Amino acid sequence: MAKKKITVQKFGGTSVANAEKIKNAAMKAIAAAKGGNQVVVVASARGKQTDHLIADALEVNPNPPKREMDQLLSTGEQQTVSLLAMAIEGMGHKAISMTGGQIRMITDSVHTKARIKSIDASRIKKHLDKGRIVIVAGFQGIDENENITTLGRGGSDTSAVALAAALKADTCEIYTDVDGVYTTDPRIFSDAVKMDMISYDEILEMASLGAGVMHGRSIEFGKKYNVVIHVRSSMSDKIGTLITHEVPQMEGILVSGATIEKNLAKISLVGVDNKPGNAAKIFAHLAQAKVSVNDIIQTEVSTEKANISFTVGKGDFADAQKAVEEIKKKVNCEAFYRQDIAEISIIGVGMRTHCGVANMMFSTLAKEKINIDSITTSEIRISCLVDKEQGDKALISLCKAFELDKPVSKRSYVK
Amino acid sequence: MAKKKITVQKFGGTSVANAEKIKNAAMKAIAAAKGGNQVVVVASARGKQTDHLIADALEVNPNPPKREMDQLLSTGEQQTVSLLAMAIEGMGHKAISMTGGQIRMITDSVHTKARIKSIDASRIKKHLDKGRIVIVAGFQGIDENENITTLGRGGSDTSAVALAAALKADTCEIYTDVDGVYTTDPRIFSDAVKMDMISYDEILEMASLGAGVMHGRSIEFGKKYNVVIHVRSSMSDKIGTLITHEVPQMEGILVSGATIEKNLAKISLVGVDNKPGNAAKIFAHLAQAKVSVNDIIQTEVSTEKANISFTVGKGDFADAQKAVEEIKKKVNCEAFYRQDIAEISIIGVGMRTHCGVANMMFSTLAKEKINIDSITTSEIRISCLVDKEQGDKALISLCKAFELDKPVSKRSYVK
Repeated sequence: MAKKKITVQKFGGTSVANAEKIKNAAMKAIAAAKGGNQVVVVASARGKQTDHLIADALEVNPNPPKREMDQLLSTGEQQTVSLLAMAIEGMGHKAISMTGGQIRMITDSVHTKARIKSIDASRIKKHLDKGRIVIVAGFQGIDENENITTLGRGGSDTSAVALAAALKADTCEIYTDVDGVYTTDPRIFSDAVKMDMISYDEILEMASLGAGVMHGRSIEFGKKYNVVIHVRSSMSDKIGTLITHEVPQMEGILVSGATIEKNLAKISLVGVDNKPGNAAKIFAHLAQAKVSVNDIIQTEVSTEKANISFTVGKGDFADAQKAVEEIKKKVNCEAFYRQDIAEISIIGVGMRTHCGVANMMFSTLAKEKINIDSITTSEIRISCLVDKEQGDKALISLCKAFELDKPVSKRSYVK
Repeated sequence: MAKKKITVQKFGGTSVANAEKIKNAAMKAIAAAKGGNQVVVVASARGKQTDHLIADALEVNPNPPKREMDQLLSTGEQQTVSLLAMAIEGMGHKAISMTGGQIRMITDSVHTKARIKSIDASRIKKHLDKGRIVIVAGFQGIDENENITTLGRGGSDTSAVALAAALKADTCEIYTDVDGVYTTDPRIFSDAVKMDMISYDEILEMASLGAGVMHGRSIEFGKKYNVVIHVRSSMSDKIGTLITHEVPQMEGILVSGATIEKNLAKISLVGVDNKPGNAAKIFAHLAQAKVSVNDIIQTEVSTEKANISFTVGKGDFADAQKAVEEIKKKVNCEAFYRQDIAEISIIGVGMRTHCGVANMMFSTLAKEKINIDSITTSEIRISCLVDKEQGDKALISLCKAFELDKPVSKRSYVK
């Protein structure tokens, strides 16, 4: 008997929000099983369940211990998986639900953002070989002392990709309420088109820039363990977007996507004494204040003085400001703060081998009379800070310039 | 250092229904800890949570697999215990919540009504010895394959008593929304009084007669493992009712309590051929139909014929009637059914050693012109079937006759 293919399907909270949607997910799983696959389903908590549980927690303790938070929140996924197994059984197919503990998804003990260490794939395979669809609670694991842990934001995606890796699955389908990954946010640029394919590196840049597609951790897992991730709609059968290793033809696509991040602030330290260790002093102090710092730019203004600027998420701004005010005298500088900015980025592996992309970006913005506050780049990304009120306009102009409203095959610059 | 006493406290669903009540339960636990005890708390699902989850299940599958039902329902208790641990931590005391799996409450694999096989007390003691209040999810366990199981109705009481036994606890407090066990149902006889003490055997009879106090399984556990159970109110500090082994002074209390069960039907088989094996034939057939049969009376009417009657719960009546109609020709009898009956019972260990209790019961009912359909007894109980519409009146007259409106010390017949 030929070995059956293994498919992992992940359904997010909106795809299992009510009985009807749970039944719909059940049908997808059964269809895959009838198509000759062994099927593992990973599910998130239903709709707003997690938010409700967090509210319940805050009502009894405004600062709940993280271990207990994990113990509480993990029930959301456990409910979904049992309901999903019931729905599948109700449709006449064998199914069994499993918690993170039951499949021995072992993580470290960092509650609320644990990292996966190992999965006992044999516990799942045993059931698959009995013809069961196995429904696994996403987002959760246990540590070595059997404390329940959770994987943090986007954790169910990570569970799904990690399971696909552990099971050597042939596909990992991420079902969601959109039909794939778009070239940019369609709420801002309504002509954005769905991408057929994108590389791990590109989507990692998009995710870290707040494109809200999939969480970075799950992509890193996919990249590390060669899991092809298929992001698609739970409400249709259409092919979505494949996230894969880079293939040669991706190089022709100068720019795959564009993003905008409005939820940040810029902090500039002007006239920092240009001595070894001063930058370290500043960022150590920020790290101590638990501020997560993004793009850092340092420029020498003279042999004695340097300017350092960086961005932080809005949520960290108050802490960052406090820390900077504390440290600024020690490094002998002034501090300036801007909250009225947006970061516009274009992403594409093609940038590595093609010049002219940066020039096209800057000239497009210039044509629109959009002033660039500062620029940062990575190998496959160029980001500009602009006035927040010009942010949408900047994004739209770049999308048009790089033809992100057209499928790849129809873009004038792609051969 | 003297060994600390261990207290188990159990909070039912109504006692943890919202944030305020959870905080109240947290305070009870902390008070016991500050009083020098090691404290283990067992909690049920909040308020109507279990009902909501059952409704969710039925929406996706009208006949959900029991294993998945357990996987689903166990989340209710898990939520309560984590919230309770958060509340306790918020009040400055160390606490940790544990699921049935985490304390290795091992049960058999009979989902939805599993029986406890063993508990790993060391997992709890480890935390107690670190000064933590340990909050354990009631109602749930795991089988040997780590499937989640539940203990059925009243399961959290059973969890609490079993834990008290495993930990050799000094007290097992069952917190509820009433302040103890009453001599009878105060909704029918408003002068009913709280009992200070009752024996396991008596409350077992009351529980099986539908007094709704505590579930029989938990009492059996207490009796078997010598756990003194203290039923008391979660909203006050008053002493409630102690459930203990029989002590000599209980004998003076002829009647401890009275119950009424309206939710039953009587089935009479008249003129059964009086041959060995006929009764077995009838009840084997009923057992096959999964009908749970209560009090059976058989009387010989002649050397050839006997009458057999018994009661069944209303829920089983349709199945019972069907089974009886199938079997009646084989045993050559007629069948009669009554659904308009109620069973009135008086219970007391004093009956063992005192005559006249039955006489007093029958004459009291006679005085009220209440006809007795049939009588059954155990060593510590007398039950009469009466017309349902006379049920409340019968109960009230017996409560008055046996002075169940007075504390034991004030009853005329108690020395």
